Amino acid sequence: MRLSRYFMPVLKETPADAQIVSHRYMLRAGMIKQTAAGIYSWLPLGLKVLRNIERIVNEEQERAGHVPILMSTIQPADLWRESGRYDDYGEEMLRVRDRHDRDMLYGPTNEEAVTDIFRAHVNSYKDLPLTLYQIQWKFRDEIRPRFGVMRGREFFMKDGYNFDLTKEDALHAYNRHLVSYLRTYERMGLKAIPMRADGGPIGGDYTHEFLVLAETGESEVFYDAEVTDLTFGDREVDYDSVEECEAVLKEFTSRYARTDETHDEALFNEIPEERRRSARGIEVGQIFYFGTKYSESMGATVVNADQEQVPVHMGSHGIGVSRLLGAIIEASHDDKGIIWPEGVTPFHVGIVNLKQGDDEADAACDALYKAFVSAGLEPLYDDRKERAGGKFATMDLIGLPWRITVGPRGLKNGVVELTSRKTGESVEVAPEEAVAKVKAIYEAL
Amino acid sequence: MRLSRYFMPVLKETPADAQIVSHRYMLRAGMIKQTAAGIYSWLPLGLKVLRNIERIVNEEQERAGHVPILMSTIQPADLWRESGRYDDYGEEMLRVRDRHDRDMLYGPTNEEAVTDIFRAHVNSYKDLPLTLYQIQWKFRDEIRPRFGVMRGREFFMKDGYNFDLTKEDALHAYNRHLVSYLRTYERMGLKAIPMRADGGPIGGDYTHEFLVLAETGESEVFYDAEVTDLTFGDREVDYDSVEECEAVLKEFTSRYARTDETHDEALFNEIPEERRRSARGIEVGQIFYFGTKYSESMGATVVNADQEQVPVHMGSHGIGVSRLLGAIIEASHDDKGIIWPEGVTPFHVGIVNLKQGDDEADAACDALYKAFVSAGLEPLYDDRKERAGGKFATMDLIGLPWRITVGPRGLKNGVVELTSRKTGESVEVAPEEAVAKVKAIYEAL
Repeated sequence: MRLSRYFMPVLKETPADAQIVSHRYMLRAGMIKQTAAGIYSWLPLGLKVLRNIERIVNEEQERAGHVPILMSTIQPADLWRESGRYDDYGEEMLRVRDRHDRDMLYGPTNEEAVTDIFRAHVNSYKDLPLTLYQIQWKFRDEIRPRFGVMRGREFFMKDGYNFDLTKEDALHAYNRHLVSYLRTYERMGLKAIPMRADGGPIGGDYTHEFLVLAETGESEVFYDAEVTDLTFGDREVDYDSVEECEAVLKEFTSRYARTDETHDEALFNEIPEERRRSARGIEVGQIFYFGTKYSESMGATVVNADQEQVPVHMGSHGIGVSRLLGAIIEASHDDKGIIWPEGVTPFHVGIVNLKQGDDEADAACDALYKAFVSAGLEPLYDDRKERAGGKFATMDLIGLPWRITVGPRGLKNGVVELTSRKTGESVEVAPEEAVAKVKAIYEAL
Repeated sequence: MRLSRYFMPVLKETPADAQIVSHRYMLRAGMIKQTAAGIYSWLPLGLKVLRNIERIVNEEQERAGHVPILMSTIQPADLWRESGRYDDYGEEMLRVRDRHDRDMLYGPTNEEAVTDIFRAHVNSYKDLPLTLYQIQWKFRDEIRPRFGVMRGREFFMKDGYNFDLTKEDALHAYNRHLVSYLRTYERMGLKAIPMRADGGPIGGDYTHEFLVLAETGESEVFYDAEVTDLTFGDREVDYDSVEECEAVLKEFTSRYARTDETHDEALFNEIPEERRRSARGIEVGQIFYFGTKYSESMGATVVNADQEQVPVHMGSHGIGVSRLLGAIIEASHDDKGIIWPEGVTPFHVGIVNLKQGDDEADAACDALYKAFVSAGLEPLYDDRKERAGGKFATMDLIGLPWRITVGPRGLKNGVVELTSRKTGESVEVAPEEAVAKVKAIYEAL
């Protein structure tokens, strides 16, 4: 993309009402625009990152054998009356009345809607196990929306639901989700720690939250320092293997790691003192097993091998897709701006032309641009007639991991400058070598 | 995808309440499930087609140089009060009151929201031309939703908005959209005819609707038979060229083609009688130029070269993404089921194993499956233990363009059967030749 043809309205000043760094940088980099309190429109740069996160979540869900669907945002109240949650949910549910005076609502979560799909179509244990998921807009009418996309009212979330014949099968689904979530977050450059949590309004005895450590996190967390050393890495796990998934769960959840809701001071104090940590964390996902809570109230049963009608065992599993943009920025930035991990960056590389209008510099930038596109990468080329300082500041703010600087002086020596956003280190290399280096970095992901 | 691990709840019986063929087949093929009147959830097979259509629309929008954004579904009423449409829009607008008693609404279209984004960030003619578009869920509270996704209440639509300094520039944007829409529909296997239409509540003197001819269409249309001979084909058009875009517009809109809203009997009768046609059509898109209607009422101005503040010239341009599934099926089916055009098919090829459990047949199907995946294609493998008749009926219903039938008898002679859904014709070929043939068909798209 050439910046002159793009829409990236960068702000020079820091917006007064943005309290945390991710909110500030998302506004300043022209990624989002507030529509109303807690409701945002996504501008091109923000949308690109949102789509990248969505793509990673989709790829990892499909790798785990989960099947994508898409439920409507507007749902009839009657479905929620069946589960009893229409009255329980309180003011966070956005209630709507349609022109025929029917009670409707904007789905804040979708246990009822997905159970309705399941019971309409699945009758036999032979069609299990089944996990359906979606990535769809949701609405929760938070009383005090704040922190930009971190606690918005309209938000984009992956919600998945497993349907299993037995509790054991459903716990395998639970473990499988935990494994796939570990992979998912690592691909985004995040360390998200599974912590024992509280069921809340969804219910359930088995539940883990995934938390990213950050000073601005809304939750207080307590953990054994050893949990931060664990990484999933590039291990291959067979998602159909009960043993392999359970082993990962044990490895990642056997040490103490809890949010304040479930924190147990006595247990915590059994950890050697030098390993005890308390910090703040941002919740980026949660998994639940809640058994037959919805299948019993809504009549989602299957015939088992003995020809008996039995309610299915269910769980639900969420990843906060739009919230993740905030969490990633909170975890990866400096005082100049965002530092995108390569897995989610909106553009793979930035090209800065130090002397726009200079034939040789323009030609070198055009050639680099074409070379990146041919390599299957997306460059952002700052082809505006701006001072070098302004161009650098913009590139630092929007946080592309790699920048190539092209100027007449370097070109005389046959070189351009390749700079890492993270370390700030630069190397002078021939243009084709710069392309090869950047290409190799992304291919290794 | 293996059918045994998929969720494709095919119905044996025709749903009683579905009046038109696309609605019947979408329900029978397990593509959608009704949530409430005019509101659908998308099951896996339907979602795949929806995503394919979305991808084509995105690719053609980006080819035309339009920039993707994503606006919120819930918007403040105040924005719509600025343009005067909050009161004008009537009962089709889904109005919501949030917990703080603020008037909100579920966007039925987004001229106000996009103008708000524009005026907040663009001040100079130097940042024009600019066209922003999104593909997002919308809600119109139709009094009588019907025909499945063809006239739903919650629907998925591409809406794009051009911002230009002058009327001439905005008319070029209009023409550019017409060109890109012609390409878009043809890639989906559709012949969509631009017809002169009525501005309706969006307003505007220049507007064309794109109509697909089908008996079940909601609009009566009148046209010169010669318009159906026009095809865009694989011509290269420079979207920046005023002349090239205008030439395409002239070629495709100079013959008589109008909906009943703008039909002019006297003009129509000037066409030679043998070329006069009246028929029914399904509207799948519309383009508008409406000048400064929103920019004046909402204060979307830029500074021009003479340092004057002038309101920008705008247009809006829509493609009914979810509705297109219905339109494509109406235009392409037979009495056995859907016939997907290759451009949008949910899976590229179906594999039917005539004798599931037979070692040789299973191995041959597995090998075919892997070969297609390696070729970058998505096969749907019916690996269920069902009778051949049932498997064929399902494949015909869901309408994949190509089917490969694998059975012990053929394998003895080293062949499988490759069948075209459209023509019903079969050829016996070696498995690797079947893969090569199907691969070549999709590569030629």
